Amino acid sequence: MNCFTLDLAPDGLGKLTGYVQEPSSELSNMNKRPALLIFPGGAYQRCSDREAEPVALSFSAQGFQTFVLRYSVKEKGVFPQPLLDAEGAIRALRTHAEEWNLDPNRIAVCGFSAGGHLASCLATMSAPELRPNALVLGYGAVDKKVALTNRPFPLERVGPDTPPTFLFHTWEDPVCPVGGSLAFAQALNQNGVPFELHIFQNGQHGMATGKPLSSNGVLENTDADYSDWIRLCANWLFHQFGSFETPGRQFSYLTVEGEGRFHGGIQLGDLLRYPEAKEVILKYLPEIERHSMPRLVSRYSVPQYSKFDPATLPPERAEQLAKELEALPYKG
Amino acid sequence: MNCFTLDLAPDGLGKLTGYVQEPSSELSNMNKRPALLIFPGGAYQRCSDREAEPVALSFSAQGFQTFVLRYSVKEKGVFPQPLLDAEGAIRALRTHAEEWNLDPNRIAVCGFSAGGHLASCLATMSAPELRPNALVLGYGAVDKKVALTNRPFPLERVGPDTPPTFLFHTWEDPVCPVGGSLAFAQALNQNGVPFELHIFQNGQHGMATGKPLSSNGVLENTDADYSDWIRLCANWLFHQFGSFETPGRQFSYLTVEGEGRFHGGIQLGDLLRYPEAKEVILKYLPEIERHSMPRLVSRYSVPQYSKFDPATLPPERAEQLAKELEALPYKG
Amino acid sequence: MNCFTLDLAPDGLGKLTGYVQEPSSELSNMNKRPALLIFPGGAYQRCSDREAEPVALSFSAQGFQTFVLRYSVKEKGVFPQPLLDAEGAIRALRTHAEEWNLDPNRIAVCGFSAGGHLASCLATMSAPELRPNALVLGYGAVDKKVALTNRPFPLERVGPDTPPTFLFHTWEDPVCPVGGSLAFAQALNQNGVPFELHIFQNGQHGMATGKPLSSNGVLENTDADYSDWIRLCANWLFHQFGSFETPGRQFSYLTVEGEGRFHGGIQLGDLLRYPEAKEVILKYLPEIERHSMPRLVSRYSVPQYSKFDPATLPPERAEQLAKELEALPYKG
Amino acid sequence: MNCFTLDLAPDGLGKLTGYVQEPSSELSNMNKRPALLIFPGGAYQRCSDREAEPVALSFSAQGFQTFVLRYSVKEKGVFPQPLLDAEGAIRALRTHAEEWNLDPNRIAVCGFSAGGHLASCLATMSAPELRPNALVLGYGAVDKKVALTNRPFPLERVGPDTPPTFLFHTWEDPVCPVGGSLAFAQALNQNGVPFELHIFQNGQHGMATGKPLSSNGVLENTDADYSDWIRLCANWLFHQFGSFETPGRQFSYLTVEGEGRFHGGIQLGDLLRYPEAKEVILKYLPEIERHSMPRLVSRYSVPQYSKFDPATLPPERAEQLAKELEALPYKG
Repeated sequence: MNCFTLDLAPDGLGKLTGYVQEPSSELSNMNKRPALLIFPGGAYQRCSDREAEPVALSFSAQGFQTFVLRYSVKEKGVFPQPLLDAEGAIRALRTHAEEWNLDPNRIAVCGFSAGGHLASCLATMSAPELRPNALVLGYGAVDKKVALTNRPFPLERVGPDTPPTFLFHTWEDPVCPVGGSLAFAQALNQNGVPFELHIFQNGQHGMATGKPLSSNGVLENTDADYSDWIRLCANWLFHQFGSFETPGRQFSYLTVEGEGRFHGGIQLGDLLRYPEAKEVILKYLPEIERHSMPRLVSRYSVPQYSKFDPATLPPERAEQLAKELEALPYKG
Repeated sequence: MNCFTLDLAPDGLGKLTGYVQEPSSELSNMNKRPALLIFPGGAYQRCSDREAEPVALSFSAQGFQTFVLRYSVKEKGVFPQPLLDAEGAIRALRTHAEEWNLDPNRIAVCGFSAGGHLASCLATMSAPELRPNALVLGYGAVDKKVALTNRPFPLERVGPDTPPTFLFHTWEDPVCPVGGSLAFAQALNQNGVPFELHIFQNGQHGMATGKPLSSNGVLENTDADYSDWIRLCANWLFHQFGSFETPGRQFSYLTVEGEGRFHGGIQLGDLLRYPEAKEVILKYLPEIERHSMPRLVSRYSVPQYSKFDPATLPPERAEQLAKELEALPYKG
Repeated sequence: MNCFTLDLAPDGLGKLTGYVQEPSSELSNMNKRPALLIFPGGAYQRCSDREAEPVALSFSAQGFQTFVLRYSVKEKGVFPQPLLDAEGAIRALRTHAEEWNLDPNRIAVCGFSAGGHLASCLATMSAPELRPNALVLGYGAVDKKVALTNRPFPLERVGPDTPPTFLFHTWEDPVCPVGGSLAFAQALNQNGVPFELHIFQNGQHGMATGKPLSSNGVLENTDADYSDWIRLCANWLFHQFGSFETPGRQFSYLTVEGEGRFHGGIQLGDLLRYPEAKEVILKYLPEIERHSMPRLVSRYSVPQYSKFDPATLPPERAEQLAKELEALPYKG
Repeated sequence: MNCFTLDLAPDGLGKLTGYVQEPSSELSNMNKRPALLIFPGGAYQRCSDREAEPVALSFSAQGFQTFVLRYSVKEKGVFPQPLLDAEGAIRALRTHAEEWNLDPNRIAVCGFSAGGHLASCLATMSAPELRPNALVLGYGAVDKKVALTNRPFPLERVGPDTPPTFLFHTWEDPVCPVGGSLAFAQALNQNGVPFELHIFQNGQHGMATGKPLSSNGVLENTDADYSDWIRLCANWLFHQFGSFETPGRQFSYLTVEGEGRFHGGIQLGDLLRYPEAKEVILKYLPEIERHSMPRLVSRYSVPQYSKFDPATLPPERAEQLAKELEALPYKG
């Protein structure tokens, strides 16, 4: 994993921390991953660590490329600076999409509390190419009652082009009233924007993951039901973006006899019954004898084996093996 | 997060990749984390990426410091070299415990397939100070039927000092017979070693996390029930090691009137009712007015507030605030 | 379990089906259970079986006494008749509380679709003694857009005395607009009534449990995320009502030597070391020898054993045993 | 639900309690359900209520027809009487299969503790037609160390024809040693019988469901991880037996114009566009106008609607409607 922190200037004043999983030939369905960009909360006075790395890693564990933006706060946090920072972060993700193995069209932004206010500004006010493809709002500060002097009120900007949104909140929240999430959901509903909303009755403001690991040792920051939001949110994101491709395994059912000759498309298990073919195969795959996985491996063709275990049989060697097999004379 | 790869030489030939979460004043209960050191499988021919980073991140997300050891394989993988590599990795974790914010006495080792063989060697054959504090074996190659020429047979080394062990396997496994895990569990049982064992009926060999993200696009590498091992294993590890401390929140119930004077131990909500105290408090905590969290914050004393939100009110400033409050005359 | 169907007349025209779990000395913490009364949906044209027994049994399995009301529908379903039926059902539950082992103050009503309309009428319009203690609304027909000619509009009756409410709905619902649940939640919020709300994006109208078992064989009636509502709802109800008491086990730490005499409060394990006491104990508990549970049972006093296993040692026999023990002379 | 208790005599001395869910036209995929027959534990001295109804209802909630056998105990519980009782119960289930809406070839037997001993006797010693189709053993008393004088030792009877088995146990169990389950699993493994085994480290003997509801108020009888056995077991049973059929929904894509005439196979939504067809349809389905489910219902043909909502449009009326539609002249 490539963990780094970037200064976004001149594209903003923020700092972008990336948790980028690198590609592997053994994870061939994971080269272009969805991404989650997190805006922690902190009343525009700070960016809380409790809503940063612990959240990022929760989604890294689900296969996402994750990022945390520490945007401008305190005196530097006067609008539109935080929004410029947010736009800089999205631009960075889309620009580096190839380098960071992410799909520039499957980027979700997840904001907590004040970060939820910022995320919803980005999703409703920025130029189309700077908006996320999905929005996640955790106890977002989107209610009129939350003091937002000199800040935009994104609720009024919700439109049919607002991205699909996942919202969660607790009814008990004494800081950001739950009515904000209700009103935001209603605005989405009126505009025909798909959304999912989970309001848990129990739990205070700022519970982050709801697990002890992001609690700062405060029991009131934990709740088992609330912490379900992570699973529900990951499932929802997979529903929006699609999950990672896992087609059923392909086996070969071709035999030497049926084909009337040797070639790489034939089932390895069948080829191994012919001493001349076995000799060739063992040159490339000596472990195939020692291993005890006959049920599985013997049903692959040469290219299928290479796809299954590219470290042992890289594509170019698989081709060579196939050629050597083709060169063998078959006496019927 | 500090992600790095270390060469273990001269303490072995392995490469140790670390996923180290750094401390934060907002994660004060997470400074000394438990650690999980992973040995991927690969028949001592390679170290599979599918059993490396995806597993590490699954446990990072649960608060663990995680590590992957890529030990010596192929011609270099002749015993005792892999075991020396494993010992080098454990030594590195214990030596760098402070630097890597981990508890040197809460280190679990998790091995898959051949990596499970290696992990169980480490746990049963190495010097006491090089053994892990808990052992996790995923479809471990610990059965006699698995070709282990010139390699130790750890099953026979299980003793009362073998660490508590969590085993999981699938009955269908065509590569490493499930009987190995059964026999290992029986050896643990005979020696009075606590263990947990989950044998899922369905699933082939090498399913790693059992989720699409570690499947290499192979449907047969996924199974929802099997993938429960991660949650069950994390819970088991917390049971062995203890979880992260989350005592109930402490509030102050002291009032100015009750105390007959101003001081920092009094509830902020009560202090704020006195204009002279309010003026002092707002110097240190200007946001306390703007914020709308009276229910919560107003019940803290000064040091409790500092513990709750050290970024805004660091301990030394909390002390100054307390002193200024104490200096205020109280007219009754 | 006592399963029965009652005609509610003259207290209404409905039919009440009960699934009443009977008390047992081995389930001593379950004698006064919470109850769930279900109003299936069906557009006031019928009461759908898919939202009846499968839902009832889901909550029976969580320890609730459950009931299904089949209220008046079609031409008989003209208001206020269905509401009179609902009131008759609540009255029946409260009247038979003792007979049916339920707590008359812990009755939740759960309505689906049109049944949700009926449930919310009951919870907002009926006399206080006929209202439920908690309300569950599954894709409730509470939106203005749903044709409700000649029926009350409960949304406008929500007040501070409306019971705590758990709502769930799907965004995709093409029959009962999700906006109804949002508006209902907002009304609860404005009245300070605690609530929990789960809007799942995916899923059509009338999914009942969301599992194949209530799907009528229609794949579109199933969704794994949606079916979480049952667990979330049961947890929420336990949070409202309290769960079933499970205090930590009480052991005796008294010894014969410490007490200077024999009596029933002494740890059985200690008593069994004295042949004269053992003889007495074996008369009452012959299996205590044959059984191999010394770790556990030997730490009980006589009354604790009786509480643990009343079938083997009923209270009156426990008293006799204690008396016989007390009568034994102790020679120090 | 039909709850009843049967005397098995002369087919045994046991009492069989049934929890039989009755068929419904709205639960058309549930007419032939799998069954679970439960043998509670109690050291052949009693049949514990804690392992009876609470377990039965847990599986009723998953769609199973469930049964509890209270077999002969104490002086009457001398072998082979309990086994004869067990055989009588299986015979009753298979004989009444049609009446009780269960599949006689999908009967699982689940035994706890001594009931696990009895269940494993039945599964390994009885005549083929009296064996269950799947076996569930909860902390089964199958270890040699458990006093079994004058009782069979089923472990030695395990053979290739033993049914697939799901075992669970806790390592801490002080009464029935966990080694029994390990040995039983090994015997199954040696005989090629599919099995699933979950050994949880924590938890005492006799935890039943592991939830407060079956704890008798004893905290030590509860454990959240352990209570997962119910979900894992239900999933495993569905894997053995198949789950309840839920094919994707069938819609009609035929139009009046495309067909050149009116008939019942045409999409209702299309038919409703023709006043003459609408008039006919409204006779049979007056609510189709009032209802607001056009998206869904309008895509059904007449027989599909009848299958979707047989209460409103029973098959015979659907046929009449189709005939009336066919009789309408179509002018092109």
